[in-house]
Formats: sequence, C-alpha cells, structure tokens
Amino acid sequence: MHDDPTIEDIRAAATRIAPHIHRTPVATCASIDTIAGASLFFKCENLQKVGAFKARGATNAVFSLDDEAAARGVCTHSSGNHAAALARAAGLRGIPAFIVMPSSAPPVKKAAVAGYGAQITECEPTLEARESTLAEVQGRSGATFIHPYDDPRVIAGQGTAALELLEQEPKLDVVMPPVGGGGLASGTTITVSTLRPEIELWGAEPAEADDAYRSLRDNTLYPSVEPTTIADGLLTSLSERTFRILCGGLAGILTVDEQTIKYAMRLLWERAKILVEPSGAVPLAAVLANRDRFEGRRVGLILSGGNTNLDKLPW
Amino acid sequence: MHDDPTIEDIRAAATRIAPHIHRTPVATCASIDTIAGASLFFKCENLQKVGAFKARGATNAVFSLDDEAAARGVCTHSSGNHAAALARAAGLRGIPAFIVMPSSAPPVKKAAVAGYGAQITECEPTLEARESTLAEVQGRSGATFIHPYDDPRVIAGQGTAALELLEQEPKLDVVMPPVGGGGLASGTTITVSTLRPEIELWGAEPAEADDAYRSLRDNTLYPSVEPTTIADGLLTSLSERTFRILCGGLAGILTVDEQTIKYAMRLLWERAKILVEPSGAVPLAAVLANRDRFEGRRVGLILSGGNTNLDKLPW
Repeated sequence: MHDDPTIEDIRAAATRIAPHIHRTPVATCASIDTIAGASLFFKCENLQKVGAFKARGATNAVFSLDDEAAARGVCTHSSGNHAAALARAAGLRGIPAFIVMPSSAPPVKKAAVAGYGAQITECEPTLEARESTLAEVQGRSGATFIHPYDDPRVIAGQGTAALELLEQEPKLDVVMPPVGGGGLASGTTITVSTLRPEIELWGAEPAEADDAYRSLRDNTLYPSVEPTTIADGLLTSLSERTFRILCGGLAGILTVDEQTIKYAMRLLWERAKILVEPSGAVPLAAVLANRDRFEGRRVGLILSGGNTNLDKLPW
Repeated sequence: MHDDPTIEDIRAAATRIAPHIHRTPVATCASIDTIAGASLFFKCENLQKVGAFKARGATNAVFSLDDEAAARGVCTHSSGNHAAALARAAGLRGIPAFIVMPSSAPPVKKAAVAGYGAQITECEPTLEARESTLAEVQGRSGATFIHPYDDPRVIAGQGTAALELLEQEPKLDVVMPPVGGGGLASGTTITVSTLRPEIELWGAEPAEADDAYRSLRDNTLYPSVEPTTIADGLLTSLSERTFRILCGGLAGILTVDEQTIKYAMRLLWERAKILVEPSGAVPLAAVLANRDRFEGRRVGLILSGGNTNLDKLPW
C-alpha cells in the first residue's frame, strides 16, 4: 500500500494552486530545432513564480494543510528553489516557514528565501547536518515538514506542469523532464502515463549524478554519492516513492556529460533568450546527445528553473 | 512635404509581416514592480525573430519591394540586429542581401548574419567607411538600400510592436521605447499618439549617448558624437525624419547613467529571467531613475532585443 498521487490529485492540485502560480508559456526556437533535428517545445518553468517549478509542489502542500497544522507553520531543508517556493507559499497563506539551508547555498537563493519572510537556519552542507538541524527546528516549532520531493502533495503539484504542457501542445510524441530527487519526474510520469500513455517518457540526468539511471537500470535504489555536476538542482537521490513511480512509467533515463549541459544551456540563452539554470538545460542536452532517437519528432522538454548566479556562469 | 508613415501604413505592415514574425509576449514581474513602485509591462522583443524588434521593420521593407527591385536584392550598413533582420527577410523572400558591417561588430552578430546567407563586406568602424563601402556595394549590385531607421517602411514595421502592446495591455498610462536612431521610437510614437493620445509617451536614452535628449530640448538636430554607452544598439544619431516624428509626439526623453542601465539589465535577467541586451534595459533604467514620475502607474516598456555577447557581460 502506498499513497502515491493519482491524476485526480494532480487535477485537484492544479485547481488549488491556480490563483498563486503562473501558467507558464511553451516556447519554441527555430534555430535550436535545426541543430537538434527535432521540433522542441520548451515548458518555461524558469518563468514560474520563484523562478522554478518548485512553486507548484510547495504551494499545493501548503494549501493542502488543515488550519490547525497550518498555524504551526511548515519547515524543510533545501539548497534552493524548494526553500524559496515553500517560503513564498507560507507567506501567501500567512503562516511561518522554517528553512534549513546549507551554508554553501548560492547567495541569490538565500536572499530570495529571506525576502519571502522565512526564518533561515544554516547548517553544514551534509545530509546528516541537514536532517539533524531540521529535526531540531521541527521539534521546537511543531511545523509540518514538507520534503522537497518525497511527499505526495509535492509530487501532485509538480505534475501540474505536464498537465498544462499537454493542453498547450496536444501533439507531442515525447515528454522529458530532468531527474534529481524525482519529484518533477514523478509528477510528470503520473500525468503523462495516465492521460496520454502513447507518449514516450524519458528522464534526463547528468552523467555525473546518475543515481536514477543506475537505479532504473538495475531495478535497485542507489543513493547519489558525491555528485559533481554543475546542474546543482539535480544532486539529490531518488526516494523509494519516486523510484517506484519512475519505474512504473519512464521509458528510461538518458545521461549527459557536463560539456553538453553547458552547450545546451548556452544555446537556450543565446538562441532562444531563455534564461535557464544548468539543471533546466539537461533535457535539451539529452536530445542533442541522442539525435537519432528524437529526429523529426515533437518533443516537450520541461525547463525546471532559471535561478543562476549571474556572477559565476559556466562559460 | 514628407512621406512619414501613418497609422494605416503601420496597420498594413502588421498584416504584411504577420506570417514572418512573432507576436511577442508581454511579461510582468512582481518583484521588479515592487522595486519600481509601478506596474510594468515588458513587451518582449528580445523574443522576436533574430532576437530584436528590427525583424519587424526589415521584413516590412523587404516585402514592400516590387518584384523587379526585389530581384536585385537589398543592402545596408549595420552593427548588428538590423543586419541580421534584413538578411533573414531577404532569405525569406529568396533575394540577395549585401551587408556592410564594421570590423568591430560582435562575433555573435556577424555569425547570425552569415547564417542567414547574406554577403558580408567588412569596413572600418567609422560612419564614413560604412557609407563609402555601402555605396560601392550598392553600385556593383543595384540592390535597394534599406536604412536601419531612416526609412518609412522600416519605421512602419517598428510601429507594429506598439500596436500589439496596446492590444495586449489596453490599460496603459505610459509607453516608453528606447531611443537610438529613432526608428522604434518613431514607429511607437505614430502608433500610440494616433490611437491612444491620452497615453504619456517617453523615450529612454543613455546619458552617454544623449543626442536625442539634447536635440529635443533645443529643438535642433544634433549628431551623436563619440558615444560611450554599453547600450550598443543606441549609439546612432536621429535623422531629420525621426527627429521630426519624435518632436511631434514624445513628452520628452529621459536619460540614464551606465550604472543604472547595468542594474536594470541585471534585474531583468535575475528577477524576471528576461534576457535583454543592454539597450533593452534602458527603459527600465529610466523608470527606476524617475520613480516619482511613474509611481503607481501602468507603464509599457519596449524591450528592444536580447542579443548579447555571453562571454562579456557587464557585471
């Protein structure tokens, strides 16, 4: 037994969060299509509130709470976009947010979280430090923990991006989200495999953080160990839940090297004027690295976010 | 007597170019609105074909030619976006384009022009060298010269951006384009002052290239002398035609310093994920530098383009 979200949960999430998030546009770019040899449809979650799809899941989680739980607030550990998204959603509902952030998080992301009125507690940049600091914060406040991805409310929220994409571009052959912890990929998998089972679903992952690729290949959940990719939104490991959901719906996971991620990111900036973070460029990198597989097809790519440190670009 | 375009010419241009250009979106950004103290509507010409509004005027000019003139091709001198726009439009019509470019033009802009199949002739980066080289190219080919802004067909095309903006956001109090040679500003002036004379129209110009500001102030056409701004799309002087049109419709021109242009550009990238070139950030800079004038108002800003050299950002 499990409480994985269904398409009904995703539809309910879409209704619940609609007043608080953007219906993001789907962009196309003739010159990138020429390079890729395919028709690409970019779901621009970089233009989402807080600059990333994470606004969807966090908002759904916060507005799903009953009043009593909500009054005690919410808490999480996150290196960035989920933290900003949860802080913003809590602010919209008028409840406190307690955020545990690694001391190594980019300044622009810390500033965004603080700007939404959340209380930040810094910790060492290790999983152990995050979890112990979070336990301490949670014990003190009684706040509800909203995990960045291992939470059915969060996954249901993330699934609304694909729901919009299928409405905006009904004639897709392929849909591809990036895979980090698997929240976006799981929500996308439930939406697409339920509504449009004929669409081919691929996940895209950095080769330098290929825990999901190896886990699906061996049908064994492996943790992400010392990943080194510039796609800093994709460092985390799958959970049992997201692993289970991805196994049930993905055709597979395509891994891409760092150079191709940087090239794809630069193409999106230079040719399409789409300002994505490195993680957001990973699906395009996977298309470019697997030209034969996607040639001539209509491919929907979910661009996860656009929060970059403009003082430290990868080129 | 003059042949300045009318609103009918601009409407005809809109119909003529519609199959070949994007109807660009109008973006908003809550966090920039908070900083500006106003409601800002960004007309995203950075997402236009060739990455700039110049696609409008060049396409209108090329598709206005009769078949006999068209067969001999078109030519121009341009440091960038107009060149790419003319090259692309000529390619769409299947006629030759001859482009005179200064040897100092950014590599990304040269590559774009060459990619559209135009013949490039390089020259020294002076107005004199441009004009003599162009005369030579024109004499040899018989091509029609399409000036980057001192041309009624080009101005009519540029005026279609404001035509769309007024449809997309009917409740604006203010409209503001950047001012370089005055093609975009002239087209915007004709559209807005004819259709919505109650809207306040301001031009935005770098203080380091303030020939239009001084010209309107003194009612005397001054040339732009050794401008030094990072807004490299706004280096050119007004022509008698664009000066006359701007005098007839602008409330005035607001000048902004380089630091504010850089700050505005970075805000657009970081907060709104809108990748503009420095010239495109000049209107936002003018709003930020004149907070009292625009406070609480609904301001439409035309973001001219997004073609930047990503290896050489101003921060």
